[in-house]
Amino acid sequence: MLAGVHRFSLPDPGNVSGLAGAIKDGRVDPNTIVAVIGKTHGNGLVNDYTRGYLAQSLAFLIAETTGLSPDAVRQRVPFIFSGGVEGVLCPHYTVFTASRSEKTGPSKGLAVGVTFTPDFEPEDIGRQRQIDLTAAAVRQAMASAKISAVEDVHFVQVKGPAFTQTDIVASLARGETVATDNPGKLMAYGRAASALGVGKGLGEIPAEKAVADAVLRDFNLFSNVASISAGVEVRCNEVVVIGLSQAWGGDLTISHAPMADALDLSAVHPMLRSLGFSEAHQLAAGESERVKACFVKCEASRSGVIRGRPHTMLNDGDMDQQRHIRGAVGAIVASILGDTALFVSGGAEHQGPDGGGLVSLIVEQSGAV
Amino acid sequence: MLAGVHRFSLPDPGNVSGLAGAIKDGRVDPNTIVAVIGKTHGNGLVNDYTRGYLAQSLAFLIAETTGLSPDAVRQRVPFIFSGGVEGVLCPHYTVFTASRSEKTGPSKGLAVGVTFTPDFEPEDIGRQRQIDLTAAAVRQAMASAKISAVEDVHFVQVKGPAFTQTDIVASLARGETVATDNPGKLMAYGRAASALGVGKGLGEIPAEKAVADAVLRDFNLFSNVASISAGVEVRCNEVVVIGLSQAWGGDLTISHAPMADALDLSAVHPMLRSLGFSEAHQLAAGESERVKACFVKCEASRSGVIRGRPHTMLNDGDMDQQRHIRGAVGAIVASILGDTALFVSGGAEHQGPDGGGLVSLIVEQSGAV
Amino acid sequence: MLAGVHRFSLPDPGNVSGLAGAIKDGRVDPNTIVAVIGKTHGNGLVNDYTRGYLAQSLAFLIAETTGLSPDAVRQRVPFIFSGGVEGVLCPHYTVFTASRSEKTGPSKGLAVGVTFTPDFEPEDIGRQRQIDLTAAAVRQAMASAKISAVEDVHFVQVKGPAFTQTDIVASLARGETVATDNPGKLMAYGRAASALGVGKGLGEIPAEKAVADAVLRDFNLFSNVASISAGVEVRCNEVVVIGLSQAWGGDLTISHAPMADALDLSAVHPMLRSLGFSEAHQLAAGESERVKACFVKCEASRSGVIRGRPHTMLNDGDMDQQRHIRGAVGAIVASILGDTALFVSGGAEHQGPDGGGLVSLIVEQSGAV
Amino acid sequence: MLAGVHRFSLPDPGNVSGLAGAIKDGRVDPNTIVAVIGKTHGNGLVNDYTRGYLAQSLAFLIAETTGLSPDAVRQRVPFIFSGGVEGVLCPHYTVFTASRSEKTGPSKGLAVGVTFTPDFEPEDIGRQRQIDLTAAAVRQAMASAKISAVEDVHFVQVKGPAFTQTDIVASLARGETVATDNPGKLMAYGRAASALGVGKGLGEIPAEKAVADAVLRDFNLFSNVASISAGVEVRCNEVVVIGLSQAWGGDLTISHAPMADALDLSAVHPMLRSLGFSEAHQLAAGESERVKACFVKCEASRSGVIRGRPHTMLNDGDMDQQRHIRGAVGAIVASILGDTALFVSGGAEHQGPDGGGLVSLIVEQSGAV
Repeated sequence: MLAGVHRFSLPDPGNVSGLAGAIKDGRVDPNTIVAVIGKTHGNGLVNDYTRGYLAQSLAFLIAETTGLSPDAVRQRVPFIFSGGVEGVLCPHYTVFTASRSEKTGPSKGLAVGVTFTPDFEPEDIGRQRQIDLTAAAVRQAMASAKISAVEDVHFVQVKGPAFTQTDIVASLARGETVATDNPGKLMAYGRAASALGVGKGLGEIPAEKAVADAVLRDFNLFSNVASISAGVEVRCNEVVVIGLSQAWGGDLTISHAPMADALDLSAVHPMLRSLGFSEAHQLAAGESERVKACFVKCEASRSGVIRGRPHTMLNDGDMDQQRHIRGAVGAIVASILGDTALFVSGGAEHQGPDGGGLVSLIVEQSGAV
Repeated sequence: MLAGVHRFSLPDPGNVSGLAGAIKDGRVDPNTIVAVIGKTHGNGLVNDYTRGYLAQSLAFLIAETTGLSPDAVRQRVPFIFSGGVEGVLCPHYTVFTASRSEKTGPSKGLAVGVTFTPDFEPEDIGRQRQIDLTAAAVRQAMASAKISAVEDVHFVQVKGPAFTQTDIVASLARGETVATDNPGKLMAYGRAASALGVGKGLGEIPAEKAVADAVLRDFNLFSNVASISAGVEVRCNEVVVIGLSQAWGGDLTISHAPMADALDLSAVHPMLRSLGFSEAHQLAAGESERVKACFVKCEASRSGVIRGRPHTMLNDGDMDQQRHIRGAVGAIVASILGDTALFVSGGAEHQGPDGGGLVSLIVEQSGAV
Repeated sequence: MLAGVHRFSLPDPGNVSGLAGAIKDGRVDPNTIVAVIGKTHGNGLVNDYTRGYLAQSLAFLIAETTGLSPDAVRQRVPFIFSGGVEGVLCPHYTVFTASRSEKTGPSKGLAVGVTFTPDFEPEDIGRQRQIDLTAAAVRQAMASAKISAVEDVHFVQVKGPAFTQTDIVASLARGETVATDNPGKLMAYGRAASALGVGKGLGEIPAEKAVADAVLRDFNLFSNVASISAGVEVRCNEVVVIGLSQAWGGDLTISHAPMADALDLSAVHPMLRSLGFSEAHQLAAGESERVKACFVKCEASRSGVIRGRPHTMLNDGDMDQQRHIRGAVGAIVASILGDTALFVSGGAEHQGPDGGGLVSLIVEQSGAV
Repeated sequence: MLAGVHRFSLPDPGNVSGLAGAIKDGRVDPNTIVAVIGKTHGNGLVNDYTRGYLAQSLAFLIAETTGLSPDAVRQRVPFIFSGGVEGVLCPHYTVFTASRSEKTGPSKGLAVGVTFTPDFEPEDIGRQRQIDLTAAAVRQAMASAKISAVEDVHFVQVKGPAFTQTDIVASLARGETVATDNPGKLMAYGRAASALGVGKGLGEIPAEKAVADAVLRDFNLFSNVASISAGVEVRCNEVVVIGLSQAWGGDLTISHAPMADALDLSAVHPMLRSLGFSEAHQLAAGESERVKACFVKCEASRSGVIRGRPHTMLNDGDMDQQRHIRGAVGAIVASILGDTALFVSGGAEHQGPDGGGLVSLIVEQSGAV
């Protein structure tokens, strides 16, 4: 197998001319698309419709070019979009392809596995069912990607459902209980439970600890490769596992690192070294080109403090904490990579160390000396 | 003369217990305070009242401890506050003191000069009168600080007036013309004209080019040391010139660097080297302690592009562009210094290279090896 | 001819199940759809993508049910959406249909005419070309709707283009001048020029006064029936003229009234009386059902004052003035009609009296006693 | 006793020239000031510092003119400010005075009673201690105002503490539990518990039901006269009870009405009739002058629906629900009174019917025919 990673700029969630052009001129075979992960223009919160808009645009484009129906496309390809391109960040989407190919060379190649859980209702969010179905989906995606060891998994992106006030009220009216009646907070529950699910699926978190009671409570439990987003445009957890496998060839590789706090450069630079980049404070333009995709999770530290000094992100009624932290950590990573088309997502509950987060990087090896 | 630089955390604009404690225990003599520069909790735009609140709090504290009236304090001490602590930034204020002292050692010491222009009306903003009075004020502050060469000026902080819609309408009703009837845009005119004034005063911009017609038009004209803020709490331009002078002693020094764009680390690291810091990506905790104050100006590039990729800051109707760029550039500088109590201010019109900005750093020399 | 007015709730810009159901069960023949006007969830400013999202959703639905291509649908049917459902307002869209029908009764019926101008570039916005092409389009739409007198025109909805920073920079790079380099402000120029165009087309504004120099300057010039929105999802001015005509039958009628300021109930209640409603402060549920659609334009008074008291809308850096005024005036009209699915749009430059706006109402006559 | 009600415009939270002028020319004796209630420019949420700013401004003014220290003023006079003047609303503050005076006439006069609870910690908020201390404070304020029957109480304004993330973390570090670790949500707990306390104190809610378990749960329990705000600038509950009493004279009276939902005009108009106003949709300018102060509490209905149609206030990540609802309900009441200097406060948990709120009005009787 051979994985392709194609990153396109997104002028507008309705403008997918980047992928359309690549399909037209043969750079991308639409039948090989297995997942799309991207950053859109919205606020990344409940009322962010740019995620659904881009999903609709891509579904129609892929449908048109493959002969599938838009619904069939959506059932096959996870569209995982996170809203919010604060500060220097650039809206973009990264198309993952998988095609049959002769294996070349002895080293492991970039491997991608995809799966979907059953649909969730508001009352499932943040609960054991979401944890367990996510754990099972992760293992299934690993298997489908022929990734044999959990150490070879370097990034698990999940997109789960968000629900509006109307959905929550309907659930309560059916006699269900919901983890919270605040739509934004319910997104946090969903991210948290899904992250515990990933950790459970990969053995990072013991099964007996990956329980509903730990959700948004025991922040000592976390996955170092889980990146979870939520949005009103999906109803199940869509799971994309990315790692390395002997069954896959090609020139791409992936690595990841935890971030202990929002300023933790010590996580990023050593990872760059291990991938063959120079010691420079910022990648030179030539080096920067080797970066094919970068994924970052981050959050405003719950202690209210970073390196001993207070921050104000959790007290702000005008700008959501996620908009603050994405802009800040996104800029830091962009300043190192010299690249602003990064997937930077807030709400890192149980995703990387508490108060920090994680970074995962897909790069071309051939550029390395 | 001897300059002191005292940085205090600001839990709330009404809580100046940091300085109060320092006065009480003798660390700061309130009679020696010559200026206060700080970052407050607000949005940094027209309706940011946290700047005025902190100014009022400090005026009452200093009045109480010096026996002056609050009004007399305000006429003597510029209180220059910029709102907006997006992302990792920490609200704080830095108190500058100047006291008579035996000169120790042969090297130039940190020097501070302060002056005020006459008051401005809405119709003066962005116009020649603001340019020229600022230029004169800068020269006067330099002289009062005994800074003999413009090369020794490393930072000029100006706080000028902002006007509300009510003020603008009153001005128009008096038959005046105003550069714009948009209060937020008028702040930009004021920053721009004041920056041209600083550049004119220091000879960075030829006098014949520092004209009203160039305001917000000819962005090739800029000062590399000007940092301008505007707020509804002042009516004149308050000017603080900071540099090096043989007439001043002490262990503090200052340097500055332009930033070519929002990701321009190449400006910051060499400056750190020149100040005796190590080559590390991030200052170690021990090194970080040498930093006494850091001032950053930055702005969202008007081209809509950073390093060839689009940004969305200038299209955003929910979050002002200044909130975006302060959070981004503030985080980048914080990640290098390992310190989040930075003065980071947006709206860098004619302040540093277009699309970039500038950074200025006051450090203790004794820590250097 | 017979006009139909069908209002549907919009749970999400990707969810057009309301119209889909009406098509499925025969209440709406998709081939008769001539225009759709609606309120979407976004901020109504430059970066509001909910308008484009709904347009895409409807284009695909109508394409699917008519056999036309989505592009052909968009060239035929204006989709005019305004973002922003602040306060009590409800997202919805109103589908206008026109079908051949025996004329019943002697009275004039509700008539709808639609046309499109050629495409505009950023440099056209706020300029004479936009004024004149809009005026011509209004007359053409009137003619196509067989509305014989300008007094019979009660509402002209225009949707014109908005441009992002990238578009503006591209225009400048081609050597063009643009009315302003601020994307949000350029939307205002476009609304203003289009409103002058409507006024010129209907003779409300003398042709010699409907000139580019008057745009955003001479607010004594205005149309009492023009409602203009702008959005990044269109490139031309889409024009929908609604009025009364002997050539049309049916039970629907329309009226309009100017609003002198944001609190001007004196405009609304007499119009309701003239349409046969009771004197009540609020329409009773039974009366409320006669309301088929309501369109409101409003704006924050530029004087900074309403009824002698200051407002803060124009100084606010956190919430755009349009979000303020839509929420306020929308609530006032909703409290009278007992209905929150109103089209309320801010940015009323030259649309109704300065500082006020206008309201237009389509009602069923048969309910009247 | 004689109560005075003096309303002043607030150009800026640092500008209390309105009251200063009234003191100077003898209209207000600063020694008689018993409470100040006002609307300030901020967002009304955790990081709204305009409330504290105005409190500081007034404390210094009153101190200066009475010879008291600012701290002594604050211990005597509750400063109860609510941030947020969305839409048409006008920033202002209303000064209540009480002076000894011959009782004139047989009717009950406007009576004002003031008291303070002990200080609260984060762990007290939303808990029984806050309920019970508030209930006791209300009874004490009633007694001090010589209001003999609970039916004569028409408005109880409480200002309680809000806590930042830093405060909450400190409380948790002391081993306490806090109702929620979200600072904004903790404000809601505080308002809710205080409202139950008012209801308990006045007998509107049976003592056995006014328990911590009912806080933010049993919304059938509410007070029809309680209006609660929270802010970081206070640490106790400041309680102002306003009603009618035989012990007080003067020409002012007060009434109140519940609002069943955000559009409930049926509450307001009958109250106006009972106070002697005409049947008009909007008070005429002459009638409007009789209004001395108006207080409104309101909230976004938790069902997500108003009059059968969805609203979006609870899904919005850009604008807080309180900003939405204050702007909407404030505009409705302003359109009836023809007056925009209204105290309109969001967060009406247990204050008026669920999903609605309440309105209270102080008027001059002499104007009535």
